[in-house]
Amino acid sequence: MAATETLTAERILEATEEVLRRHGPAKATVVDVARALGVSHGSVYRHFRTKAALREAVTKRWLDRTSEALGGIADDASRDPESRLRDWLAALFAAKRRKAGDDPELFATYSVLAGEQVQAVGEHITELTGQLTRIVADGVAAGVFHGVDPATGARAVFQATGRFHDPGYVAEWSTPEADTDFEAAVDLLVRGLRA
Amino acid sequence: MAATETLTAERILEATEEVLRRHGPAKATVVDVARALGVSHGSVYRHFRTKAALREAVTKRWLDRTSEALGGIADDASRDPESRLRDWLAALFAAKRRKAGDDPELFATYSVLAGEQVQAVGEHITELTGQLTRIVADGVAAGVFHGVDPATGARAVFQATGRFHDPGYVAEWSTPEADTDFEAAVDLLVRGLRA
Repeated sequence: MAATETLTAERILEATEEVLRRHGPAKATVVDVARALGVSHGSVYRHFRTKAALREAVTKRWLDRTSEALGGIADDASRDPESRLRDWLAALFAAKRRKAGDDPELFATYSVLAGEQVQAVGEHITELTGQLTRIVADGVAAGVFHGVDPATGARAVFQATGRFHDPGYVAEWSTPEADTDFEAAVDLLVRGLRA
Repeated sequence: MAATETLTAERILEATEEVLRRHGPAKATVVDVARALGVSHGSVYRHFRTKAALREAVTKRWLDRTSEALGGIADDASRDPESRLRDWLAALFAAKRRKAGDDPELFATYSVLAGEQVQAVGEHITELTGQLTRIVADGVAAGVFHGVDPATGARAVFQATGRFHDPGYVAEWSTPEADTDFEAAVDLLVRGLRA
């Protein structure tokens, strides 16, 4: 690290991701990251007190990138709820596919980390289903969706589209049927909400 | 093996399952199974020419147990299609849960085998979605389900309920929310088919 640069948490997390990309999920200890940055591990410890805290923070950062990108669709009250729901689900699928396709090894590494970081993943899913709940609630308020509790409906939609965002299905995302399957699932779910 | 018993393919597959139960997915070669039966491996080779053929046959037998149990619900034309659809999905979830709960190690072993036996699993999914297609087609013919191609709708329903039958979700099946989540998913999908 150039001595003039300030060692921020964000710079440490960038370096952590680079260590993970190069060396896989077993790496990314505080010491590995300090070495990559050319700083003492004490400097890193001032930001992340343990290996567990560092791994949690880098996983959270990875997951937050997806939820932040989707938040704008969820909260755009100027658009009709059905289109927002379709766009939100398509954007989630596209974001996951992009992550998996652009850098398969990093995606696999983060899938391993996500398996360890039960709390961070739980918070991520809560954030995403919260966004979906706002869309469904707007649809109920607008009289477009019927007979469904927004939180229950959102949770059902999120789970029913797991094939298109759960990393366990990554191998399906590049099959020739993936887009048709996605459209059929979303159509059926939207029809269920409108019914 | 008692000399008076005939060595049938079914007896070999029973012994293979027992070898898998005791020793895990790496086992179940022709030689392992012959030893367990107290016969020469030549006797087993007369039924299964390779280790691959034996592993495929035992996986297929395991998968067929589920699809045979569900076939009766799919083909009971005397019942209304919506109830049959709900019962069929509930029976699939129950069968998977029972297999996973009664013998978790054997379930994990078969999950590994299923990961290897792409063709057997593909045929199993084709059989199950074929059953679902017959139910949806009966619903369309009866005017209960609308605006859906039976095969497309069945495939979408099967995929959207993956959380409740895909072995990758086994950890979710014993959570307190599992039954409520299942009901919410099925309700939403049935509403979509009725819309």
